[in-house]
Amino acid sequence: MTSTPAAHDPNKMAVLRRTQAVFSVLLVLFVSPLPCHNVPAYQKPVMVQQTGKVLPKPQMLTVSAEAYTLAMSGFKFTYGSSSQMCDIVDQAFRRYYDLIFVVDGVKKAPVVSKDMSELTELQIMVKEPCTGVYPSLESSENYTLTVAAPMGTLVADSAWGVLRGLETFSQLVYRTDDGMIIINKTTVDDFPRFAHRGILLDTSRHFIPIKYIKQNLDAMAYNKFNVFHWHIVDDPSFPYQSVAFPDLSAKGAFNPYTHLYTQEDVKDVIEYSRLRGIRVVPEFDTPGHTASWGAGLPGFLTPCYDGSAPNGKYYAANPMLNTTYDYMTKLLQEIKDVFPDKYVHLGGDEVSFNCWKSNPDITKFMEKMGFGTDYSKLEEYYIKNILDITTSVGRDYIVWQEVLDNGVQVAKDTVVEVWKSNPSVPTEMARVTGQGLRAILSSCWYLNYIAYGEDWGKYYKCDPQDFSGTQAQKDLVIGGEACMWGEYVDGTNLIARLWPRASAVAERLWSNKDVTSMADATVRMDEQRCRMVRRGLNAEPLHPGFCQFEYD
Amino acid sequence: MTSTPAAHDPNKMAVLRRTQAVFSVLLVLFVSPLPCHNVPAYQKPVMVQQTGKVLPKPQMLTVSAEAYTLAMSGFKFTYGSSSQMCDIVDQAFRRYYDLIFVVDGVKKAPVVSKDMSELTELQIMVKEPCTGVYPSLESSENYTLTVAAPMGTLVADSAWGVLRGLETFSQLVYRTDDGMIIINKTTVDDFPRFAHRGILLDTSRHFIPIKYIKQNLDAMAYNKFNVFHWHIVDDPSFPYQSVAFPDLSAKGAFNPYTHLYTQEDVKDVIEYSRLRGIRVVPEFDTPGHTASWGAGLPGFLTPCYDGSAPNGKYYAANPMLNTTYDYMTKLLQEIKDVFPDKYVHLGGDEVSFNCWKSNPDITKFMEKMGFGTDYSKLEEYYIKNILDITTSVGRDYIVWQEVLDNGVQVAKDTVVEVWKSNPSVPTEMARVTGQGLRAILSSCWYLNYIAYGEDWGKYYKCDPQDFSGTQAQKDLVIGGEACMWGEYVDGTNLIARLWPRASAVAERLWSNKDVTSMADATVRMDEQRCRMVRRGLNAEPLHPGFCQFEYD
Repeated sequence: MTSTPAAHDPNKMAVLRRTQAVFSVLLVLFVSPLPCHNVPAYQKPVMVQQTGKVLPKPQMLTVSAEAYTLAMSGFKFTYGSSSQMCDIVDQAFRRYYDLIFVVDGVKKAPVVSKDMSELTELQIMVKEPCTGVYPSLESSENYTLTVAAPMGTLVADSAWGVLRGLETFSQLVYRTDDGMIIINKTTVDDFPRFAHRGILLDTSRHFIPIKYIKQNLDAMAYNKFNVFHWHIVDDPSFPYQSVAFPDLSAKGAFNPYTHLYTQEDVKDVIEYSRLRGIRVVPEFDTPGHTASWGAGLPGFLTPCYDGSAPNGKYYAANPMLNTTYDYMTKLLQEIKDVFPDKYVHLGGDEVSFNCWKSNPDITKFMEKMGFGTDYSKLEEYYIKNILDITTSVGRDYIVWQEVLDNGVQVAKDTVVEVWKSNPSVPTEMARVTGQGLRAILSSCWYLNYIAYGEDWGKYYKCDPQDFSGTQAQKDLVIGGEACMWGEYVDGTNLIARLWPRASAVAERLWSNKDVTSMADATVRMDEQRCRMVRRGLNAEPLHPGFCQFEYD
Repeated sequence: MTSTPAAHDPNKMAVLRRTQAVFSVLLVLFVSPLPCHNVPAYQKPVMVQQTGKVLPKPQMLTVSAEAYTLAMSGFKFTYGSSSQMCDIVDQAFRRYYDLIFVVDGVKKAPVVSKDMSELTELQIMVKEPCTGVYPSLESSENYTLTVAAPMGTLVADSAWGVLRGLETFSQLVYRTDDGMIIINKTTVDDFPRFAHRGILLDTSRHFIPIKYIKQNLDAMAYNKFNVFHWHIVDDPSFPYQSVAFPDLSAKGAFNPYTHLYTQEDVKDVIEYSRLRGIRVVPEFDTPGHTASWGAGLPGFLTPCYDGSAPNGKYYAANPMLNTTYDYMTKLLQEIKDVFPDKYVHLGGDEVSFNCWKSNPDITKFMEKMGFGTDYSKLEEYYIKNILDITTSVGRDYIVWQEVLDNGVQVAKDTVVEVWKSNPSVPTEMARVTGQGLRAILSSCWYLNYIAYGEDWGKYYKCDPQDFSGTQAQKDLVIGGEACMWGEYVDGTNLIARLWPRASAVAERLWSNKDVTSMADATVRMDEQRCRMVRRGLNAEPLHPGFCQFEYD
């Protein structure tokens, strides 16, 4: 059937199984005895004890052998006397209390040992006012955590740092097989390597119900991601219910009643994200990827021609009409009102020129503008207008790399997202940063592409600063994004397909550049996967083995 | 981003979107503009109306344009006056009533049109007594279904035929976007092409909670599969709680309290399967794939040697000891008592000879038996003994192809499961059936192997009778199995990964040999996927698009 096992030592296995909180890590080697099956043979299991490993690995972490118990009734989160207070932290206290004490949706009081010291309190100190704030690219996420009985402390500039520190604290805590909740004496001094650590979800190729968007936001928080790049509309459907243009979803959603993000839904997602220190960056991709806009916004798309007659097809925003820019001004004004983040993603990728070329009015416009037959100049004209509109409504922008590749003049504070590997990622990263622009990388993190077996290693090994350039260029790399495009993904498989594979990206973007050992990362990935499962997310297994608490 | 779209016609799309119960089927073509991303470009969407298509396609099906409504209060399943009655059918009445009228876990009364005739009753006639029966390889699953207002009829020899007919009936029913439940005037005369239509689940490499085993049994029933091949134990763990040898799971399960199938669990699974016309064929694979047996059954495995000294490792059942056969007799006797199916799967695959070769006692035994240095004779000796024991306790057996490949003399009623593609599937199928033995095929249906994109076509195109041989040989092919080996699968991703991909195998094993059009199958696959989602299973999407009711 599947594999030729190495000789195991069953007695040793049994002994190890009886130890507390044992995780089996089977190092899988691929051999190919058959031409088409690529049958894996697994090797001797390596047992790894669960001890509250933190993923992503903190910048500085010192764990002592001294361990404390936590009692459900005895433990509390508190504010320090001079701390700022706010709803973000209040709600995080409740969430993390539950994450520590709840198993399978039920609060499960731990066994408390009389022989061990007890940690009874974690006192939080927030330095900056945090009421009503939103996270931003400039937010501090630094924190210092000291765990020592009877009271630990967590100090941070901002509420965002507190959220990251509470996540670390909750991961340091582990539940033994005999029901105790343990944390070791620990000090952590931590901060992210990159400020932009994103996950892209595509809600156009499939509609993703709010329930799974929130599950994904939970997973993001557990892995210290801080940007939800919401690729909310595209060719297949337009599920965003616009106030200015309600027909866009009424005529462009898969179903205008059931496959829709209402204004209430969007507010809900933004608030859910804010409470987890996650920015919501919406993407309204133009001029291409706009097929679903056509029905609800007549005149917006370019009519395509066969010879001298329109053929009834439409493609891409019509760049020659003033109405196109009027529409986009109104829409971008609305986006500014709805989405609090300073950045909007404007897309700008993959524009085909065939339809523009076929249209005689566009040809005349090209002549009038002196573009000759260079349609990239027309694209540049469109994009330049959109960028200016965006600036004028008071938003900064992120664009896909083609905007720059096509020579469009962008503002100095533009963020460019690199997604192509052609000619190579390092070349493009060097080119973008060489122009003094900030870059985020997603090329190596298209997690929608799946393959049989364990594939997170390749995501782990990709480093966004791995290109030839000056230190100033390296400093312009502000992060990266794991992308889950929606061709084959919806609520049925989103979480299992994305997690824990995206945890590898999380560590690359947060931890120190020198954190590269696959062996060490494997231990953290395993525990993180089981931790997500215990917290109720169906994160998929990485290799044969088991979790202390399975998804059930 | 992801793709260069063809020019779409948004107005046409919008019109089609407004039609009732529209499914978007995007035919996906793969182009590779980038070296490493294999970015898909999707083509014009083809819209397909949901009309109650049946998967697997029945042998004979005539659907008229005449349509009837069903009312929730007005509709009932009944027994015909001369019908046999039993719990299998009683419970199926309740299940299928719910499957027709429940959406998102809530009974949702349909809108009833005064302008249409109403179907108020489906009268069932079961010819054979069905109380307390279990399905078998010889069971009739034939049925005849006539849908005509006001009363339809479903006639079958057995309760199993009724189950298949009720599934077909429930699929013919569809819910329109304006809330009506509709069924067209229809006649169906149906029977399976193959008698053995199985799904293999592996509960050793990962433990699968009973909840997901049952969800999979539901999916099997929706797709007319009739064999649950339960690969219950293997090297990594032994979750079956044996009455005769409780230490096997106590020392061989991942966790003996939480990662365990108790006798009650197994009874529960068997009864759940029986009520759905599904046989449970357990596999206790020996002599290899037994690492997890060692701790709980000391002396069962062969000690391996380095030179003249045991090296502390063990591998495979020890074929020279009488105690080995005593153990297996006791275990197989228990298996006979616990599992009602006439067949047990004995494994017999992938035996490495290295450990046996290293052991001096085995060497002496080989000499004594006159096996020379041909260890396949030793394997044959072991297997022959196990087959004889199985026969003596009153069970027939299925074995993996190696048993035959190694020249073991098997009983004439042995079923051989072909899983290798080396040298080729047709060669092996011809060889097995050429020896007059019955064959089931799984080689082309290892669904644990995943790839990016839509891959069900290759499963659909595989035909178990596609080899050179006489009609008598073809007739010895009794079916096939879709296998979901557990290296990367547990409760978190089992259903999404297996369904609807296994639906392609379902149709190949049930429908007529001539049902081969991919275009037609695509329509059925799409509707079947959305049907499973509506019934609460997280069957994953096949391509961009949407379902009337999403998984939420």
